[in-house]
Amino acid sequence: MTTIDTPSTDTAPACHGSAHGDGPHGYSGDKEAHLKRLRRIEGQIRGLQRMVDEDVYCIDILTQVSASTKALQSFALSLLEEHLRHCVAAAAAAEDGGEELNAKVTEASAAIARLLRT
Amino acid sequence: MTTIDTPSTDTAPACHGSAHGDGPHGYSGDKEAHLKRLRRIEGQIRGLQRMVDEDVYCIDILTQVSASTKALQSFALSLLEEHLRHCVAAAAAAEDGGEELNAKVTEASAAIARLLRT
Amino acid sequence: MTTIDTPSTDTAPACHGSAHGDGPHGYSGDKEAHLKRLRRIEGQIRGLQRMVDEDVYCIDILTQVSASTKALQSFALSLLEEHLRHCVAAAAAAEDGGEELNAKVTEASAAIARLLRT
Amino acid sequence: MTTIDTPSTDTAPACHGSAHGDGPHGYSGDKEAHLKRLRRIEGQIRGLQRMVDEDVYCIDILTQVSASTKALQSFALSLLEEHLRHCVAAAAAAEDGGEELNAKVTEASAAIARLLRT
Repeated sequence: MTTIDTPSTDTAPACHGSAHGDGPHGYSGDKEAHLKRLRRIEGQIRGLQRMVDEDVYCIDILTQVSASTKALQSFALSLLEEHLRHCVAAAAAAEDGGEELNAKVTEASAAIARLLRT
Repeated sequence: MTTIDTPSTDTAPACHGSAHGDGPHGYSGDKEAHLKRLRRIEGQIRGLQRMVDEDVYCIDILTQVSASTKALQSFALSLLEEHLRHCVAAAAAAEDGGEELNAKVTEASAAIARLLRT
Repeated sequence: MTTIDTPSTDTAPACHGSAHGDGPHGYSGDKEAHLKRLRRIEGQIRGLQRMVDEDVYCIDILTQVSASTKALQSFALSLLEEHLRHCVAAAAAAEDGGEELNAKVTEASAAIARLLRT
Repeated sequence: MTTIDTPSTDTAPACHGSAHGDGPHGYSGDKEAHLKRLRRIEGQIRGLQRMVDEDVYCIDILTQVSASTKALQSFALSLLEEHLRHCVAAAAAAEDGGEELNAKVTEASAAIARLLRT
């Protein structure tokens, strides 16, 4: 925090760090939107519990599960897009011969693979 | 079927109706297990909100989203398996020249398609 | 196995056996449609090779990959629907206390899980 | 870039253009690997046709469909990773106030969404 030579990266990965105190520019600008989406998904999951509890016809429950999964995927996509825009771009600008960029792209690709495999 | 206090079961699909008061044979046997799973997923979604709120690194959030999506898909699969075992089988036994079975299979296939498309 | 009244089950699982010489009733009725779909998908994959060979922009290649994956999923869904209609239904009719049905549903559910995980 | 015989690269998107005559650094380095993968997938699709033609049990066909879908997704992921590494990074380096980067990230995100939806 107080060292001179690594001001931005000391508490977190470059991207992550830059996401904090940046006011409206970074991650924090979308934070409320993300939380809103997640609260809606939480409501859907509670709705599923009610459906099971009330013995709703299983096909109708499955339809609601598909909607919740889709909402989660949508949330993941918006996070990922933000990540590419801010973190991967920041890594591309790093003057380290592409090392940081390589690491970020490998990491993002693994995250996309995990999303695809579910 | 003709009693006053069970109005909802007489118009419902065979499977749906049989899911009710059948004790350990039908849907109700797994009900508590289903609710447990859904409560765990609800906890995961609340965990996601905490992660967003605490500015956790987005790749770590994405990993948790993948886990939640996988848990939802697993829940859907267990519901679907139960449905095939009880409702589709019951429809196959119906002596109506396969009409009920046809309807149930078309319906189940549409549900599977929705799960795949998410 | 050698009784007179169940000739179709002696060489294979009920469904599988009935898929063969049954003329228009079973699997064979849709066979040409299935082959047509698969030939179209094969053409799409060859199209992808051409695109890579001609250095087509990668995002356009990805769009074509999505189309091919969707076509494969569609093919899988139509096979699965047929399977549920014929094989699972046949198993439900077997007078063995549900053993055959149980096995078929477990097997179909595992296949659906594999499709979902890809 | 300024030679006469490569007219197509100067109007193409930055990434696309840079993918061409760059020798082992760009897209072309992986081209043979991509084509090899696609040829293997083409072989799988032909194998599926053989299976349908020989009335193979449908569950076994579905298993093979899952393998082909997975192989296609894997191919897409490797293309995407390459795209992020080269094209998105190149866009991040463009001195146009982030316009090119924004366009590339939006485009890549849409491609990821299409892959997820299949």
